[in-house]
Amino acid sequence: MIFSHDFGSESFSTDSRLKDDAFSSLVNERIGKEIGYYELPFQSVALIEHIHRFAEKNPFLSAETIHDIAVIGIGGSSLGTKGIDSLLKSKKMPYRTLHFLENTDPIAISKTLSNLKKESTLFIVISKSGKTIETVSIFKTLIGYYHLDLDGIDKERIVAITDEGSPLSRFASYHGIQQFGIPKNVGGRFSVLSAAGIVPLTLAGYDTKSLLEEGGQFLERFFNHEEDHLLDKALFLYKHSSDININVLFAYADELENLCKWYVQLWAESLGKKDGAGKHVGLTPYALIGSIDQHSFLQLIMEGPRDKSVTFITIEDFENNLLIPDISLKYLEMNDVVNGKKFNELINFQCEATKESLRMNNIPTDHIIIKKINEASVGTIIVYYELLTTLMGRMMDINPYNQPGVELGKQILCEKFTE
Amino acid sequence: MIFSHDFGSESFSTDSRLKDDAFSSLVNERIGKEIGYYELPFQSVALIEHIHRFAEKNPFLSAETIHDIAVIGIGGSSLGTKGIDSLLKSKKMPYRTLHFLENTDPIAISKTLSNLKKESTLFIVISKSGKTIETVSIFKTLIGYYHLDLDGIDKERIVAITDEGSPLSRFASYHGIQQFGIPKNVGGRFSVLSAAGIVPLTLAGYDTKSLLEEGGQFLERFFNHEEDHLLDKALFLYKHSSDININVLFAYADELENLCKWYVQLWAESLGKKDGAGKHVGLTPYALIGSIDQHSFLQLIMEGPRDKSVTFITIEDFENNLLIPDISLKYLEMNDVVNGKKFNELINFQCEATKESLRMNNIPTDHIIIKKINEASVGTIIVYYELLTTLMGRMMDINPYNQPGVELGKQILCEKFTE
Repeated sequence: MIFSHDFGSESFSTDSRLKDDAFSSLVNERIGKEIGYYELPFQSVALIEHIHRFAEKNPFLSAETIHDIAVIGIGGSSLGTKGIDSLLKSKKMPYRTLHFLENTDPIAISKTLSNLKKESTLFIVISKSGKTIETVSIFKTLIGYYHLDLDGIDKERIVAITDEGSPLSRFASYHGIQQFGIPKNVGGRFSVLSAAGIVPLTLAGYDTKSLLEEGGQFLERFFNHEEDHLLDKALFLYKHSSDININVLFAYADELENLCKWYVQLWAESLGKKDGAGKHVGLTPYALIGSIDQHSFLQLIMEGPRDKSVTFITIEDFENNLLIPDISLKYLEMNDVVNGKKFNELINFQCEATKESLRMNNIPTDHIIIKKINEASVGTIIVYYELLTTLMGRMMDINPYNQPGVELGKQILCEKFTE
Repeated sequence: MIFSHDFGSESFSTDSRLKDDAFSSLVNERIGKEIGYYELPFQSVALIEHIHRFAEKNPFLSAETIHDIAVIGIGGSSLGTKGIDSLLKSKKMPYRTLHFLENTDPIAISKTLSNLKKESTLFIVISKSGKTIETVSIFKTLIGYYHLDLDGIDKERIVAITDEGSPLSRFASYHGIQQFGIPKNVGGRFSVLSAAGIVPLTLAGYDTKSLLEEGGQFLERFFNHEEDHLLDKALFLYKHSSDININVLFAYADELENLCKWYVQLWAESLGKKDGAGKHVGLTPYALIGSIDQHSFLQLIMEGPRDKSVTFITIEDFENNLLIPDISLKYLEMNDVVNGKKFNELINFQCEATKESLRMNNIPTDHIIIKKINEASVGTIIVYYELLTTLMGRMMDINPYNQPGVELGKQILCEKFTE
């Protein structure tokens, strides 16, 4: 993974205290075990062993009759896993196919139901709080649709992932359903490297060990001050946050779209807060796909208000040799300049050209280059954005781990159904 | 379609001149034929006849061996068609399946190639300018991959849609390939109701006549001052544009995601401009999906900076009876309040609850209710957003129809390949 930026360096020399303080906050959070996501890359390696032992003992998984895994979860309980799966399966379909039931959209649920057979499916229900209304409602629908007998052999088709002692956990214990815990000190949107993501990804057949190891190495390098570009980036974004309050992640690969959605929820929910003084603060994340959005949204970045920073993310080697053939079409010869080039090269040159055009207009950019699509790259990206989000939150003097603003709507919904 | 808003009315009484001026601009654009999209709902009805005659005469289409249509286009040449197709096919798969080749991502192109057989596919190449590098490069790849003989019978497998006299148009004429024109006075992002969208949608089997008719009726009602809520909305968004510069479209249906992407490109590229005084102005569109994004981005809207307005869009009747069964799960009884309810009802109640929670926090909202998923609804939505975008552009004193900011990157790209 290569990280570069054009944020300049002159602005950083005087701000070392801000960086030091934010860095120390993270060190203290980690040491104090107050915040648990820092330990996940290391803790979850042991979890993989548990998952394999569970799979060996499970009558359906061990008989290899399970080809599909239905993940029932919303927000932090699905976006990370879905983003990782979308990226990795673009290179190689996993041993078992993951399906996501994450919205209350009746058409989407019906479509997934019609694609899944009880005999070949494992149902993984994920809810940090253990009482999410969407997740529980969809789970009940599955129980009804597939006639799942919770007190018979069907309970082996179900896995629950939740906080220890939560309603879902107690439900699972009551029926003897296999459960995996999410550590109490890990929030939902920071939980992808806990059981919430590692259980479905491991059972699907991905190399989650490599994902965790690489994520863990990046995390250790950060804490050893070997990835200080993260501090520089956080400081730049923080210092300009009153003017530049939209942070664009411009990914040059269709396969990164869902991972960008994970970034969007992490950034938006963590950094949109009332600060210590009660002021509404926050940074708005934005996900784009190149080259498609060069043909539309780029206009707004270039000529609209100067309220955006842009992080490019590209894949250096798609491991795909598709090329533009050496064909010259009458009247279309102006495009022959790319004849014989790989699309891999074209799309990355498009990114470079766009980046240059933004820099010429003094729009701040940075660039993350993923070498290849694999589990190791994903682990790094996940930890990179989790650390960056926390650093930003600490500089902004907000709590990046709570989400008081989403509760009111839930209350109103309950009232609507009980009034 | 039902439109409502909470923008208040007291702010509108004194601003009638702004509304009148913007309205007059649109009337003049329409009368002067300077801007052509206003006439598309009427003009394109005749186009449908042409398309049917073409299909009857085409040896492959008439023999009914074509089951797939590959649309090769990017930005304004694909997003609208894709958005409409995604919504409508969620209810009923069309007679022929549309596939979109819209990015230079080598994995995405390879995947589409492996899914399409030459014998059963019609290739529709769409480029307003007739020289888009992505589109031409992908088209050449198809020619190479499928061994398309442009001077033999294979030319009947190809359709070109472009400006009259463009390089692509001249190429098509040279080989005797069927072509349909995009009117010169219709920009790419306003072209979905021209041949750019109507040809692929009609050949797929959608009721484009109904789509155009309903869109045309909405347009006429607007010009008869029977849809003045559009003027009120534009005025409100314009007047608050310096503070509220992010306009969220919060769609409560997975099936609306791609249509929202069409809105995003239309709004961003039309309204991100230098104004008459050379100032960078613009409004940032944002697409969210409910209920999923209630679990993340909603926090930023509720507690972050007060820089967002929110337009909810819901489907009143999904025509789907899936319900949450009357099952009570031990320890999860708190969710039994929705037992026996349809998901259709739950998702719309979730929207209402979120809307109420935003209104209680004085965040401006409006709401578009689509009665049912069908061609008529889509036609209305398309025209609604095109008119709203133009109105905004006129109030903001910018040209909503050009896109000078996307050219620099194209130049740099060309230099990279020729240097």
